[in-house]
Amino acid sequence: MKTVSGGVCAVKGVRAFGLKEGKNGIAVISGGGQATGVFTRNKIVAAPVIVTREHLEQSGQIYAVISNSGSANAYTGAQGITNARRMAWSLAERLNIENNQVAVASTGVIGRPLNFKWIATKVGEVITNLRHDEEGNLRAAEAIMTTDTSPKYVAVDINGLRIGGMAKGAGMIEPNMGTMLAFMYTDALLPSEILRKCLKRAVDKSFNMVTVDGDTSTNDMALLIATGKSQVDISVAKFQKGLNFVCIELAKMMAMDGEGATKLIEVRITGAVSQKDAVRAAKAVVRSLLVKTALFGADPNWGRIIAAVGYSGANFNPDLLSLAISDRSEEVANIISSGVEVLSTKGERMVRKTSEIMRGNYVIITINLGAGIKHAVAWGCDLTYDYVRINAEYTT
Amino acid sequence: MKTVSGGVCAVKGVRAFGLKEGKNGIAVISGGGQATGVFTRNKIVAAPVIVTREHLEQSGQIYAVISNSGSANAYTGAQGITNARRMAWSLAERLNIENNQVAVASTGVIGRPLNFKWIATKVGEVITNLRHDEEGNLRAAEAIMTTDTSPKYVAVDINGLRIGGMAKGAGMIEPNMGTMLAFMYTDALLPSEILRKCLKRAVDKSFNMVTVDGDTSTNDMALLIATGKSQVDISVAKFQKGLNFVCIELAKMMAMDGEGATKLIEVRITGAVSQKDAVRAAKAVVRSLLVKTALFGADPNWGRIIAAVGYSGANFNPDLLSLAISDRSEEVANIISSGVEVLSTKGERMVRKTSEIMRGNYVIITINLGAGIKHAVAWGCDLTYDYVRINAEYTT
Repeated sequence: MKTVSGGVCAVKGVRAFGLKEGKNGIAVISGGGQATGVFTRNKIVAAPVIVTREHLEQSGQIYAVISNSGSANAYTGAQGITNARRMAWSLAERLNIENNQVAVASTGVIGRPLNFKWIATKVGEVITNLRHDEEGNLRAAEAIMTTDTSPKYVAVDINGLRIGGMAKGAGMIEPNMGTMLAFMYTDALLPSEILRKCLKRAVDKSFNMVTVDGDTSTNDMALLIATGKSQVDISVAKFQKGLNFVCIELAKMMAMDGEGATKLIEVRITGAVSQKDAVRAAKAVVRSLLVKTALFGADPNWGRIIAAVGYSGANFNPDLLSLAISDRSEEVANIISSGVEVLSTKGERMVRKTSEIMRGNYVIITINLGAGIKHAVAWGCDLTYDYVRINAEYTT
Repeated sequence: MKTVSGGVCAVKGVRAFGLKEGKNGIAVISGGGQATGVFTRNKIVAAPVIVTREHLEQSGQIYAVISNSGSANAYTGAQGITNARRMAWSLAERLNIENNQVAVASTGVIGRPLNFKWIATKVGEVITNLRHDEEGNLRAAEAIMTTDTSPKYVAVDINGLRIGGMAKGAGMIEPNMGTMLAFMYTDALLPSEILRKCLKRAVDKSFNMVTVDGDTSTNDMALLIATGKSQVDISVAKFQKGLNFVCIELAKMMAMDGEGATKLIEVRITGAVSQKDAVRAAKAVVRSLLVKTALFGADPNWGRIIAAVGYSGANFNPDLLSLAISDRSEEVANIISSGVEVLSTKGERMVRKTSEIMRGNYVIITINLGAGIKHAVAWGCDLTYDYVRINAEYTT
């Protein structure tokens, strides 16, 4: 498995393009086949989520995706549903596919009516410009950015078979099923049941393990679309591995680009009694405002980390707990070893090293619960002045 | 029922005093009798919580409380337990009571060893100065402040019977049982079983409904101590009402003094199917970083409020949901009425009024879930630049 350029357009049969004008953006991705999706569990469900879920149930296939930024088209009543359907129609008509073979996705302010008029005037131009190259992927990824500061996409090649993905998301990030918008494509020819299981597994290890602010969106959507255009045979295990990689990379890009963030936080839990406990502990640490602010300030206040583990609900024995901080280099700063604080005994150089790690842009917190053999990894970011600035002034 | 001055010292038989020196503080409250407590559910339990719980189990009575700031005495190993016991001994010896009639409480940095030496040199002076007046209460309340900007205490008089309380807490506030430190006293003569039930009920409606940062502390402790010195007969219902008032006022003081906060947020949920749903919805809104930052910026981004209700897990019908914002004046800004956004139809004056309310220092968000008859109220605060500043630089 190796990474390749091009994002979703690295996959055979996939073309993409997008346009942005002020706060409005529109992206189209064409190409597809068998498809599956996971969606927000928020009880306020955005119109595009309702329509896309319906289309997937009806046809099981997606041949084109249309996505807009500027309005989430959520809590917009019957008019919102009509507008989401219109987005699908505008694409189906021009691409000569069925309405229910189109996926619709939206991101932006909740409650703000969708500016369908603007979309209608632009969709033709976007379709005319659809391209099967990195530029097409880039333009689509950029068109759906809101508070995102960079476009998010990745692709891998496994013996000639491709999996590519594109995502957006920097705030209202605490998916508990899908996440903001993530579109994954593959040219693998796999039955829809396999695609469904693989997507669910990959999402659980990636988008469901990332948090920026703890707020679950009304618009979360992750789609996996298979063009089936590759002749390469692949085992399900290998495909799963590739899909996991793509989804995890996209999830990490979201955390790294979390609103106002200066660093990525990776929390690795080992030694848990159950998978559920590992996930709980990892998420509690990565979600803790006190941990997030301590990391912003490179404040070596490790008590906040173990307090978060303590209230996470995970089973563990405080006397067997171990805690270390590291970056992506070899060196690890051990802070607690089997219930005993050890950092202060390791000499000045190690204390300095710990501060250096905390000032870096990729901080790994490893916690061994000392209670079992299950493990999990979660990603998040620090909480900064810029987070407050961005969100205190979002709609104005 | 009327409020009276004096905090815990408004109660017959209660004296208090405290001292502060740099980051170290010590407070003592004397007087007592039958007592009951609720404590943190964090799996990392601070030494003073372990010791106080043990004392309550052994004696069921508390005649003195000793509390320090500067170290939480949490995750401090066997030495931490020894230090907590020493704090109790130092008081029991001088006041001529049993060790297990002393409650011990700590607040400060987790993992930092307790400076017992400093406490030992000061405890005599504090005891000598114990006073049965507002000044004594004030000095004790101030001595245990950490990031708190103001002392927190309140008392009520019910036909001559008194209930008084004192609390501290501004960060690591998301109690799920007791909370930071709260000491309530009454001169009522009530059986310990009644005291226990009343405290549990009051805590559920007050400290358990306040959040600053969503982080549950290792040191949460709420005690109710009855001196039994009043001859006034009181019904349990009336006592409960008075205790609820005291606990709710203290909880609101914590939210209002939340780290960096500029305003108190009160979330009132009505129309819930169950009490659990009402609590879930109220807490999700008051905990949402996006709601907290929007209120700091007085940003009328109401979509964030309903998104939080949507992911709270509470049952409701989006088409029957209503949302209003108000302050403590009579005027209410209706934003959503039975699923329909109405604010924009109410004219310029009402839109201006909404902005005014959001800029105020006491914002009430009322949400009718339109699904049942249960209700709940939660309190929190906005998320500001100062929150980040305080917590990025806490231990340094």
